[in-house]
Amino acid sequence: MQLLETLKWRYATKKMNGQAVPQDKIDSILEAAWLAPTSSGLQPFKILVITNPELKAKIQPVAFGQTQIVDSSHLLVFAAWDKYTEERIDGVFAHTATERGISVNSFDDYKTRLKNIYLSQPAQVNFEHAARQAYIAFGLAIAAAAELQVDATPMEGFDNAALDGLLGLPDQGLKSVTLLPLGYRDQENDWLVNQKKVRTPKEELVLKFA
Amino acid sequence: MQLLETLKWRYATKKMNGQAVPQDKIDSILEAAWLAPTSSGLQPFKILVITNPELKAKIQPVAFGQTQIVDSSHLLVFAAWDKYTEERIDGVFAHTATERGISVNSFDDYKTRLKNIYLSQPAQVNFEHAARQAYIAFGLAIAAAAELQVDATPMEGFDNAALDGLLGLPDQGLKSVTLLPLGYRDQENDWLVNQKKVRTPKEELVLKFA
Repeated sequence: MQLLETLKWRYATKKMNGQAVPQDKIDSILEAAWLAPTSSGLQPFKILVITNPELKAKIQPVAFGQTQIVDSSHLLVFAAWDKYTEERIDGVFAHTATERGISVNSFDDYKTRLKNIYLSQPAQVNFEHAARQAYIAFGLAIAAAAELQVDATPMEGFDNAALDGLLGLPDQGLKSVTLLPLGYRDQENDWLVNQKKVRTPKEELVLKFA
Repeated sequence: MQLLETLKWRYATKKMNGQAVPQDKIDSILEAAWLAPTSSGLQPFKILVITNPELKAKIQPVAFGQTQIVDSSHLLVFAAWDKYTEERIDGVFAHTATERGISVNSFDDYKTRLKNIYLSQPAQVNFEHAARQAYIAFGLAIAAAAELQVDATPMEGFDNAALDGLLGLPDQGLKSVTLLPLGYRDQENDWLVNQKKVRTPKEELVLKFA
């Protein structure tokens, strides 16, 4: 099974060699994230693709000096909506209606239900919900990279507020949640590359109610 | 590319036909979730596999009557750690040390760093972090099911507290975050099966910093 082979091959690359990932592979990785399912189809996040070397150099200290930031060829930043708004929700369903060639009014009841839930909740609660959706896409981007034998390092360890400031995310109503540098492993200098992949024993992770 | 084909094939199945998914496919779907990368390798969640018809019947009203709960053959419940504790963190690294045949002391600095971060944060903040990790596994389980042409319905729409009570999750230090019924589409009676898959225009989702 392709996905299982893929997930066994990947690991959180600690040292990259600077080699560039071809654009068509980057496009496929982004396409996997774009196809990710999200709650009510809201896709409440954006993905920034950073190739500019000066910008990556500025991000590195914000990510505690991790070298993959600059040794990757493409740095993905997953950034979730900072809050849900009527305009954002309406925008999603207007687009869906256009794509399906139906009246936007056909979503009226559903939209009202969503707005009743989300617009009455604090922005932080909705941001957490948006962040969770971004993690689905993040996971699928990781899997897509691995299928293409592109190395990646899923990262949460960075100063989110500082990165947001650097990238002007608050003005766009976004907050960074994860980073994904894409590149190729430096086989000689990566301490993790030959370590055994370890997971919680399956029988502890999975509980059966038969 | 297998993953992209897989993601295009799948959709959030609205009506299932009751046909049972073979156990080997269920095992592969669980294996994909098990292999999912998580922050510091904590895997701070469990996956409940529910096949018991009486239990599924009790869950259906808690999930607003959604028929996939009872028409699926296997209902997965993703449940995240309700909080991070010293014991849970120590347990993960003790297992990793055993698997890699190294001294557990080699993780001392790293564990101290993790504990300094997590044990000083409110339980709710850590639960949100755990939930995000569960979403990575949730996404990969969805992709695994689709690769095996097993239908699935990613669900957040249920009464989390009621489900937790029904499954005794508080006693296990868990809180449900998502459901994933697994089964087969009822081609004739699923209103969504022939609808166009719609996503935010790619150029709106992806922002380039070249």
